[in-house]
Amino acid sequence: MTKRQLGPTTQLYPMPALLVTVRTGEGSAGILTVAWAAIMGGQPPMMALEIGGSHYSTPYIEQEGSFTVNVPSTKQAVGADYCGSVSGTQDPAKAETCGWTLAPSTQIASPLIVECPLNFECRIVQKIEAGRAAFYLVEILETHVDEGALGDDGKPSAQGVDPLIFTPDGYYYGLGERLGKAWSIGKALQ
Amino acid sequence: MTKRQLGPTTQLYPMPALLVTVRTGEGSAGILTVAWAAIMGGQPPMMALEIGGSHYSTPYIEQEGSFTVNVPSTKQAVGADYCGSVSGTQDPAKAETCGWTLAPSTQIASPLIVECPLNFECRIVQKIEAGRAAFYLVEILETHVDEGALGDDGKPSAQGVDPLIFTPDGYYYGLGERLGKAWSIGKALQ
Repeated sequence: MTKRQLGPTTQLYPMPALLVTVRTGEGSAGILTVAWAAIMGGQPPMMALEIGGSHYSTPYIEQEGSFTVNVPSTKQAVGADYCGSVSGTQDPAKAETCGWTLAPSTQIASPLIVECPLNFECRIVQKIEAGRAAFYLVEILETHVDEGALGDDGKPSAQGVDPLIFTPDGYYYGLGERLGKAWSIGKALQ
Repeated sequence: MTKRQLGPTTQLYPMPALLVTVRTGEGSAGILTVAWAAIMGGQPPMMALEIGGSHYSTPYIEQEGSFTVNVPSTKQAVGADYCGSVSGTQDPAKAETCGWTLAPSTQIASPLIVECPLNFECRIVQKIEAGRAAFYLVEILETHVDEGALGDDGKPSAQGVDPLIFTPDGYYYGLGERLGKAWSIGKALQ
């Protein structure tokens, strides 16, 4: 296999397509789409998200110190792309435009997007410099999941969530073929 | 949609399944599978990865201050699961067991996994506490990609990379249906 060197890039595969939602006033919320995000700890559950300083919602995120992270399913692909393409200065009511319902969180002021099958309430723990950029480290305070997205074990299932996937070549995908069970298929090599 | 509350969890969808590789001696390397990882900055390109302190490779990672991040394709699913299931204390030569070739990096001492279509050379910038866990913030020094995984634009393409996806219900998937183009399909709502 011949390799080509591209220099330093951000071409990691795959990425999630998450909807960060923050209260922007009485009954109003800003929504932006974030692909640079991952779990970063389990005790307690924490997540890191890169959210640029120039977004409409960023001052509200800084002010609230909390936001929700909503995992869209493939059904919300068009809305997720809209929320990542249009600024809140142009449309401060994106949920309405996307036909989505905002519902109260239990522990923070920012609302959940009901149509997203999986939602996290998050509180900012730390803002961390990453070169000339910065990202937020947040603690996950609560997880909400659609009853219909739960597996037999009472946890979210991949097929139930049907998560939207972003690839850095600029496309959205759904999950494809299930290839095998983790901590299991590798036993063939033991 | 009725929601169930699960408390704080790490049930984020989707996750990558990355192979972190570090030099463990002359011509030898440790490999471990990491799903808690994402890009965290673009100037310069940076990534964050949660790598627990109890792994065989962790002392080598701390000592080297650098490692490679290798993106497996669906073809490497069995090996990726093996590297996430078996400790380096049990098998210090996982690449050989998996039938993979290690090749030198250009800027760091740890090698690349040639069979993985996409590889990053990474240097640790900071180790960050995340509750009782910790994660590494790394700078991406170089990107290697298989010629056959490049799109017409000279960048990696999703179909070329065919990335392995991990879902926290404990399964591996490939990419499914391409749902649409980013910064494009959302225009339907404008």
